[in-house]
Amino acid sequence: MHSAHVPEIVVSRLPVYLRALTEMKSKNREITSSQELGDRLGFSSAQIRKDLSQFGEFGKQGTGYNISFLMEQLQRILKVDRVWDTALVGTGDLGHAVANYAGFLDRGFRIVVAFDNDPKKIGDKAGPFVIQDVSTLEEEIRNRGIMVAMLTVPAEAAQDLADRLLRAGVRAILCYAPTSLSVPNGVRVEYIDPVLHLQDMTYYMPE
Amino acid sequence: MHSAHVPEIVVSRLPVYLRALTEMKSKNREITSSQELGDRLGFSSAQIRKDLSQFGEFGKQGTGYNISFLMEQLQRILKVDRVWDTALVGTGDLGHAVANYAGFLDRGFRIVVAFDNDPKKIGDKAGPFVIQDVSTLEEEIRNRGIMVAMLTVPAEAAQDLADRLLRAGVRAILCYAPTSLSVPNGVRVEYIDPVLHLQDMTYYMPE
Repeated sequence: MHSAHVPEIVVSRLPVYLRALTEMKSKNREITSSQELGDRLGFSSAQIRKDLSQFGEFGKQGTGYNISFLMEQLQRILKVDRVWDTALVGTGDLGHAVANYAGFLDRGFRIVVAFDNDPKKIGDKAGPFVIQDVSTLEEEIRNRGIMVAMLTVPAEAAQDLADRLLRAGVRAILCYAPTSLSVPNGVRVEYIDPVLHLQDMTYYMPE
Repeated sequence: MHSAHVPEIVVSRLPVYLRALTEMKSKNREITSSQELGDRLGFSSAQIRKDLSQFGEFGKQGTGYNISFLMEQLQRILKVDRVWDTALVGTGDLGHAVANYAGFLDRGFRIVVAFDNDPKKIGDKAGPFVIQDVSTLEEEIRNRGIMVAMLTVPAEAAQDLADRLLRAGVRAILCYAPTSLSVPNGVRVEYIDPVLHLQDMTYYMPE
């Protein structure tokens, strides 16, 4: 079951549930409850049951959720029961940090190519990847059938590179640059903006 | 007006509104509408009016919102009408990227100190900051009255450093490490987890 009518905010919580379940499983836990998940994540148990019920019946009244089973279902729903080849564009400090981040592969993503426009960097490595000239971007993206990209470039370069990625077939961009990208309908963009999180927290600080 | 009953999800949208307004202002725009904001951000205009109405009356029917005025109000509500001294813990690639990020100061945050535990790094610079020995963390945090910190350390080091930050007076932590921190009530933690955003996008990808 995969409804087009599930609100985006509900979808955005599924990865959070999956991450919590993964942590439980890593501690050899087998069963959890909407109450425990809610306590852990700061949602009500009713919210969690309601969110999950949009996609099917994953638990039994009184016996809770089988962690492995629920993980598999969420991975399927989020389409991370496969591995998405991913392009990294920009290999400054942030690009290097992203290239070295070990947490992508077992959560559905594998960086397979890294680009930069600095001739001095081409041929060097960013994490395990040989940095390629960004002039080959369209060709590499098309040849590899890459649909997911991460943009770790300066804000002023982001829109042009996003346009190039989309023309080559990318359909989802995670943008680390502090800017807003303009993209056509049907393309997904998400932003890593640390200040959004900081401002959200200071709201709760004492005067 | 500052209600304790505003849902967290509403609060979390205010920084997004503020960012959009800031971009409009940078293009010398003076007036906007809930319709324009909604179109830009992918929310309904009703949602935006409802969110803002939780905090007061910021626009007039038919004339829209004065961008500068609404920005000031949101900055006040989010408590970023001041600048929060912020500590950076961890100066690997990611810490360096964060230290060099130019987008904090004009949005309410100023990194004032950076720590690492690597003796070879102490005294070097991360962005404009001299890296200090993490053994001085408690003393520095207390002396400077720092309440906000960013953790760019490996996952296995994050909880211990969070505990130390909190004991020294920090009340809000932005955690880049792929882990969940356990913190007491009244302390805020937010996470930068790129995979949450990637998984949210692959949900919408064609099969």
